Amino acid sequence: MTDNQPGVASGNSQPRVVSGPNIGPVDASVLPRFAGPATFARLPRIDEVSDVDVAIVGVPFDAGVSYRPGARFGPAHVRESSRLLRPYNPALDTEPFGRQQVVDAGDIAVNPFSITDAVNEIDRGARHLLERSRRLLTIGGDHTIALPLLRAMAAKHGPVAVVHFDAHLDTWDTYFGEPYTHGTPFRRASEEGLLDQSGCLHVGIRGPLYSSKDLTNDVEVGFQIVHAREMEDIGTRGVVERIRERVGERPVYVSVDIDVLDPAFAPGTGTPESGGLLSRELLGILRSFATLNLVGADIVEVAPAYDHAEITGIAASHAAYELLSAMAVHDYGR
Amino acid sequence: MTDNQPGVASGNSQPRVVSGPNIGPVDASVLPRFAGPATFARLPRIDEVSDVDVAIVGVPFDAGVSYRPGARFGPAHVRESSRLLRPYNPALDTEPFGRQQVVDAGDIAVNPFSITDAVNEIDRGARHLLERSRRLLTIGGDHTIALPLLRAMAAKHGPVAVVHFDAHLDTWDTYFGEPYTHGTPFRRASEEGLLDQSGCLHVGIRGPLYSSKDLTNDVEVGFQIVHAREMEDIGTRGVVERIRERVGERPVYVSVDIDVLDPAFAPGTGTPESGGLLSRELLGILRSFATLNLVGADIVEVAPAYDHAEITGIAASHAAYELLSAMAVHDYGR
Amino acid sequence: MTDNQPGVASGNSQPRVVSGPNIGPVDASVLPRFAGPATFARLPRIDEVSDVDVAIVGVPFDAGVSYRPGARFGPAHVRESSRLLRPYNPALDTEPFGRQQVVDAGDIAVNPFSITDAVNEIDRGARHLLERSRRLLTIGGDHTIALPLLRAMAAKHGPVAVVHFDAHLDTWDTYFGEPYTHGTPFRRASEEGLLDQSGCLHVGIRGPLYSSKDLTNDVEVGFQIVHAREMEDIGTRGVVERIRERVGERPVYVSVDIDVLDPAFAPGTGTPESGGLLSRELLGILRSFATLNLVGADIVEVAPAYDHAEITGIAASHAAYELLSAMAVHDYGR
Amino acid sequence: MTDNQPGVASGNSQPRVVSGPNIGPVDASVLPRFAGPATFARLPRIDEVSDVDVAIVGVPFDAGVSYRPGARFGPAHVRESSRLLRPYNPALDTEPFGRQQVVDAGDIAVNPFSITDAVNEIDRGARHLLERSRRLLTIGGDHTIALPLLRAMAAKHGPVAVVHFDAHLDTWDTYFGEPYTHGTPFRRASEEGLLDQSGCLHVGIRGPLYSSKDLTNDVEVGFQIVHAREMEDIGTRGVVERIRERVGERPVYVSVDIDVLDPAFAPGTGTPESGGLLSRELLGILRSFATLNLVGADIVEVAPAYDHAEITGIAASHAAYELLSAMAVHDYGR
Amino acid sequence: MTDNQPGVASGNSQPRVVSGPNIGPVDASVLPRFAGPATFARLPRIDEVSDVDVAIVGVPFDAGVSYRPGARFGPAHVRESSRLLRPYNPALDTEPFGRQQVVDAGDIAVNPFSITDAVNEIDRGARHLLERSRRLLTIGGDHTIALPLLRAMAAKHGPVAVVHFDAHLDTWDTYFGEPYTHGTPFRRASEEGLLDQSGCLHVGIRGPLYSSKDLTNDVEVGFQIVHAREMEDIGTRGVVERIRERVGERPVYVSVDIDVLDPAFAPGTGTPESGGLLSRELLGILRSFATLNLVGADIVEVAPAYDHAEITGIAASHAAYELLSAMAVHDYGR
Amino acid sequence: MTDNQPGVASGNSQPRVVSGPNIGPVDASVLPRFAGPATFARLPRIDEVSDVDVAIVGVPFDAGVSYRPGARFGPAHVRESSRLLRPYNPALDTEPFGRQQVVDAGDIAVNPFSITDAVNEIDRGARHLLERSRRLLTIGGDHTIALPLLRAMAAKHGPVAVVHFDAHLDTWDTYFGEPYTHGTPFRRASEEGLLDQSGCLHVGIRGPLYSSKDLTNDVEVGFQIVHAREMEDIGTRGVVERIRERVGERPVYVSVDIDVLDPAFAPGTGTPESGGLLSRELLGILRSFATLNLVGADIVEVAPAYDHAEITGIAASHAAYELLSAMAVHDYGR
Repeated sequence: MTDNQPGVASGNSQPRVVSGPNIGPVDASVLPRFAGPATFARLPRIDEVSDVDVAIVGVPFDAGVSYRPGARFGPAHVRESSRLLRPYNPALDTEPFGRQQVVDAGDIAVNPFSITDAVNEIDRGARHLLERSRRLLTIGGDHTIALPLLRAMAAKHGPVAVVHFDAHLDTWDTYFGEPYTHGTPFRRASEEGLLDQSGCLHVGIRGPLYSSKDLTNDVEVGFQIVHAREMEDIGTRGVVERIRERVGERPVYVSVDIDVLDPAFAPGTGTPESGGLLSRELLGILRSFATLNLVGADIVEVAPAYDHAEITGIAASHAAYELLSAMAVHDYGR
Repeated sequence: MTDNQPGVASGNSQPRVVSGPNIGPVDASVLPRFAGPATFARLPRIDEVSDVDVAIVGVPFDAGVSYRPGARFGPAHVRESSRLLRPYNPALDTEPFGRQQVVDAGDIAVNPFSITDAVNEIDRGARHLLERSRRLLTIGGDHTIALPLLRAMAAKHGPVAVVHFDAHLDTWDTYFGEPYTHGTPFRRASEEGLLDQSGCLHVGIRGPLYSSKDLTNDVEVGFQIVHAREMEDIGTRGVVERIRERVGERPVYVSVDIDVLDPAFAPGTGTPESGGLLSRELLGILRSFATLNLVGADIVEVAPAYDHAEITGIAASHAAYELLSAMAVHDYGR
Repeated sequence: MTDNQPGVASGNSQPRVVSGPNIGPVDASVLPRFAGPATFARLPRIDEVSDVDVAIVGVPFDAGVSYRPGARFGPAHVRESSRLLRPYNPALDTEPFGRQQVVDAGDIAVNPFSITDAVNEIDRGARHLLERSRRLLTIGGDHTIALPLLRAMAAKHGPVAVVHFDAHLDTWDTYFGEPYTHGTPFRRASEEGLLDQSGCLHVGIRGPLYSSKDLTNDVEVGFQIVHAREMEDIGTRGVVERIRERVGERPVYVSVDIDVLDPAFAPGTGTPESGGLLSRELLGILRSFATLNLVGADIVEVAPAYDHAEITGIAASHAAYELLSAMAVHDYGR
Repeated sequence: MTDNQPGVASGNSQPRVVSGPNIGPVDASVLPRFAGPATFARLPRIDEVSDVDVAIVGVPFDAGVSYRPGARFGPAHVRESSRLLRPYNPALDTEPFGRQQVVDAGDIAVNPFSITDAVNEIDRGARHLLERSRRLLTIGGDHTIALPLLRAMAAKHGPVAVVHFDAHLDTWDTYFGEPYTHGTPFRRASEEGLLDQSGCLHVGIRGPLYSSKDLTNDVEVGFQIVHAREMEDIGTRGVVERIRERVGERPVYVSVDIDVLDPAFAPGTGTPESGGLLSRELLGILRSFATLNLVGADIVEVAPAYDHAEITGIAASHAAYELLSAMAVHDYGR
Repeated sequence: MTDNQPGVASGNSQPRVVSGPNIGPVDASVLPRFAGPATFARLPRIDEVSDVDVAIVGVPFDAGVSYRPGARFGPAHVRESSRLLRPYNPALDTEPFGRQQVVDAGDIAVNPFSITDAVNEIDRGARHLLERSRRLLTIGGDHTIALPLLRAMAAKHGPVAVVHFDAHLDTWDTYFGEPYTHGTPFRRASEEGLLDQSGCLHVGIRGPLYSSKDLTNDVEVGFQIVHAREMEDIGTRGVVERIRERVGERPVYVSVDIDVLDPAFAPGTGTPESGGLLSRELLGILRSFATLNLVGADIVEVAPAYDHAEITGIAASHAAYELLSAMAVHDYGR
Repeated sequence: MTDNQPGVASGNSQPRVVSGPNIGPVDASVLPRFAGPATFARLPRIDEVSDVDVAIVGVPFDAGVSYRPGARFGPAHVRESSRLLRPYNPALDTEPFGRQQVVDAGDIAVNPFSITDAVNEIDRGARHLLERSRRLLTIGGDHTIALPLLRAMAAKHGPVAVVHFDAHLDTWDTYFGEPYTHGTPFRRASEEGLLDQSGCLHVGIRGPLYSSKDLTNDVEVGFQIVHAREMEDIGTRGVVERIRERVGERPVYVSVDIDVLDPAFAPGTGTPESGGLLSRELLGILRSFATLNLVGADIVEVAPAYDHAEITGIAASHAAYELLSAMAVHDYGR
């Protein structure tokens, strides 16, 4: 096929790594990794494929952020930072793009000026995509988007357990009278019955709170906490155990606020807190989720204007890669 | 059409600004400018359109650079920096995407390790695209790529006049024995008979040379010079006049090395020289080319790792926009 | 007074440059410029002074921005970038902090999640301050804030002429259905009768528009245009003349979107456009306003996350300084 | 109270979180965290409060630095980086701003050109503040400032134990004949009898020294060492134990050179050394000081020009927060 | 000697720390560390010394890089980042510049446009230097350079064991038909018989591969793997043990790709992968090599354009320092 | 000569461009520009040459700076930024390194902690160098260094005219009681009789002053002023004329504070002021000095920590290049 040869450009047809029925990334031996469109991991667009296992979708929205804005540029940045992802994951001995069909579904179009409209648009967009794709992996955008995503999840799966990686609880009530912000999605989700309150867990919490009531409220919403300061004692293995105990066989949604990492590993985010996880720890934990019943996931709060040399974007893209690998192993074995 | 509504993402089908038969950018009133894939100016991909007036194509290649590398990331960066371009150019009273069909043809796949292979691949890629598109506007990449692009141009149009914006002459002979580098394209092009030697001109030349012979050789290759230091005296108008006199009715190829701008306006480049043009001057000159018979153009040497806040990328994307506008006015009038 | 001596810190009482009844900046010969709180130009807080000529107030709001957010950090950044401002302006031979009482009134508290609430809060805050201060000089924030500021101005002065420095017209209608954004303040202001339509003018307009209707609409709203591309021809003097002719003796409000400067001079902004003004040109024009009847001014769209080494912040702080100097000369002569 | 409502700005009177007699930070539910003056943690200025438990004071001085200067901008930067600090510390179950009155005392005015003068001014300034405040927490500035601070401490408490976090010993003798530099404060302090030589300890030492005598001299000055390379073996718990054993019930001064952190966690510093502590480790150790008899503390060597996205500033502000929390628990229990 | 006194500059003769016959760094008590030429650690040039134990040589070459270029500026950057290195290593109780003669041999001149020529030039340059120096420590440049360096090593020592620190295997076959790239040196070296296949080991491998065959091929080439994800379990000690077991008494060449560190610790590199080693871990492992029979070493893939505040450069310079110290202890004891 | 061939590194002997008796830069056709030591323009060290026309010497000193420090790294940065300078200046049709012997004399060793000592050391160092070199071109360092340099100049030439490019007058008296700072060198020089008061001139002055007396005092010190705001009116030609009229045949010393450029062109400096010169203007003016009797020059206040992509460093290196060219033309004709 002429269009697949070096020296010939084309806007849509690229030589690809194919594995059985699944169409994978653009072949890096033909088109160098720095060339061509930045779909996630250089995967096909959703319109280039018929059956979809996992759709990666961006939600470029940050009107719910309380401090540094900029996560609206997160989806584009994480995609650019994903150009180096290759097809085989040795840590899980799987090919996440080969065992399952993963696609890039583009971005959901959301109103940048109205949080209420945006929440509804994200909900609608996610449900629409779930008609085509078994699972969604969403790239934010600020954490506000977890609420409509959980609505779409619960509509399909019923109440879900949530494993939430974050420096912050995100179970606050309102801020400036606004019920939908990046600090409130899990409170709202709990109130709306979207959460399986017996299976929710935060990982990586740290830093100051408003008051001790934040912790009490958080328990009521349905969460247990693995604090960042516990990492040195229990290690990645200990956290994995805590998560498995809490989540069990429940359908589980994973929400990764990139600020769960220390600012050294994720400077490009909106509300950084010192003393966070190492990237190695986060990836190790996510990798273990091959045994969980993942129904979907998001990676949020990447704010590129504060990133440097894609440190944050690369960490986010690798987090997504481990989640995709875990899904592949769960569904298709090793 | 469902896919065109807010809240619904899709990888390929976006609401677009349409003008007669021509399909323009994604409609920013539906999908915000920071969302969706970064084709140039959010224009359609070449595979989404049948008849093409101008194809914008990237050549992510920098193995010919003698100092700071990184222009391989230039095409992606200029595209990201082009998200704010809107459809109407008030300075020329034209709609460059409405009067003519402009598309993004993606990147030409080139070998990053072999200059010789790359030059051939670019030549082949450009000729291939010229079968589909009346004109090419190429985003580099380092200046080495101008040689194969000129080969493709001359194959179609015969020898062409070149208006070359640059701090450097780029008519040197070899470097480390290598005939094809970013400092030699116009020497090679002249030797190969690709240039109309009576119509070539450099604009913006400045900074130290190797010896006074560089100037003599340059004349032999077929160029006249408008030095950057002349700008204060003759102004944009004066330069435009000099170009018109030199070029006349000849078919003309425009090659813009972004380092023609002062490092303040284009820090993200490989061989910066102090004392360059203002962006306002460059855009003013390019805008005047509506009266020239443009057969093609390139914008090269954007090295994103040295850019800040897209200063350089935005200047490059605006330069492209003015060239596209000039082509529209030339072909379709105002 | 003990607290004014080197080696002694205090949170509130600093040695100051005093000129007649007016209390000026902290004395840099006692407290170095890099020390102490960053009020604008190290001027007194509003609560430290009784009679106020000009209150400088921040509006840290950016929910109305359509592209790069971050202007919510603008007021803090411009203040930090104003530490080098000294008391005497040789170009106008005046002491802007000595001839009149200038204070820093802090920031108006605005809801970051609701544009409607924010607009009302800014309106209320500005009117409140105008009870204490003859004039306001506001540091944004995005350009949305110009609407409530003009409401407060018009409430006091009736319809005002507006001299608007910007790359963009900002007279668009709505965006995503939202009437109040950073692209619409002057349309809304005109509709609300806040503008003297015979005296309004944009300076520095450039870059692509949505359509030629943007220009027609703009005329209807009441504006004339000095395009950035005219600068080379008519120069600072020519622009000043055009403004004087248009504005005459009318009460005039000056609104400076920092993106009127080229991205080289103002990288830290939300919607940069190539080909803008030099800082020297902007300052020269503002300096000439000593002959105008200034009723207030704003400087908006400084987005610090995209700034480098305070280039943008310093340009903004100098623009403010020239406006304050012009007010001093207008009221008190040289 | 009118001035406390959204939409109304005022330079001095802000709505605050109040806890019993103690006046805390500006209420973030009224004035967003990015708004208003950057006192440390948005706490009241010293002049706004009568009784003070801890005064936070800046010493913007860096004339004693031997490599990268810039710590003179440290106090302003750490304050800006402290805007996200909230009132409740869950790790220690305390409210550091509620259990005790913490204020921002501004910066001590010091001569930037004379180390000798500066040392005396800092000494005088610290003693002056200690008349009003039970404790000082100082933000540097380079490490030179520890000497005059220790003079003020010893004047009040007699010789103190020092727990010194740093990559470097800072017990060198002179440099270029200068006895007071950022590499010599603890040698001078020991010579002056300010240290309880039986209770001093360095934590985090690493990197090359001038000679093995540096270690011998250091012992003579009165210090023991916990090397950074020991962290992997003994962990945070091990370090805490070592500190407790060494310090016991002695009055202890804590001096944190931010370069104790690895450059990944603290790029913004003057003499970075690879192989340092993680922020999580530093915060964990500082948190344990609730059982120590802290008489004062400093956090020094934050050089903002080398920081990125406030990584270093945030680490420093969190270090201060843990120290303040430890003080609160020590004095008032949990 | 007049030229050695403060206040007198000279281009070649600087006061130096001398230890027996060995000439060490410029004396920092006479010429501040930020002054004077940036030879590595401010050591003498090779022409200033007669007998050489270790020559540090730069290879500014990056034409073999597959993603972010820029390592051509690596040698200059690592040298600039080495100005703070002092003469005594307390962790190994040795003086690496005092026990042995270490010099800076400058850079090998290599063709930037031809990988084949460059490989030959590096080979020739290294052999030439090995006639003067017992050992080489090379600063890259991209990892392509390891092949010619291993050729020179094997020519002198026969096949060598390789301890290879990297995120990537670098045992791939070809890329774009090119046999010599930064992803292939150890495959080529193995094919050429330069490796002792019973003694080779990768440390720090992580991230996605092309396929599971990469691992099989890697075994065939002669390598064992310590994955980055094993660090949490086995720690620095465990890795050291694994290396010692594998390497034994064999002559060993150490090749450190700086991307073995996490991007937080080494943002300035060409193909960053999340989840890497901490700098403390890398330095701890290298330090243990005092018991190995080191025949040479390289530190490669530092790409300064992506570095920030020399984080990466400092880590690289410290890695070199630990290797030099290990050599000193090995040869001369403690 | 073996050492001059590609593939062979050596610390001291490099292939060079030779012109008659004068030894020029390292030959870039053998050793690429990014390779080898960063002497200025890759010129020989002073110890490699016998007769010297111009010695370029660094003074890495910044203890006299009142705002942003960091100019101590200026000499190293300007040298790194000078790697692209080539041998022939077409604007003046001269070879500045061929017509005269230019060398890099390294840095003067100065005490970083004592301004008084430093001033004496610079004085001594400059006089020492003037015994070997006809002229000095000094790279700072902050502007304090101009005083001892002028002492050395006057000792050789008697009182000199000074053409001073700067945003600031630098004729203030004292600051914090310190007579020697970067704001006072020309006052001191005038008091000491080092200036020919009938021939001194500032170019580029702008921004606020302390009071109108600053201007009066400045006249008394012996200066006339060309304000930056005059550039638009009189242009480069006008300034050149003003300088020639003022300076005449007097021996003239040129002092270039890089902040004479606008912050867009020189962000890396200590006290930036908006509204400055374009780099093209500065270079044009310096170029005209071929008709002046230049006795020496300095380029000061480059503070690399605030630079980006060497914008400032490149401007400084080009300014030096034009001055060197002017000296060559003056002495040897075209």
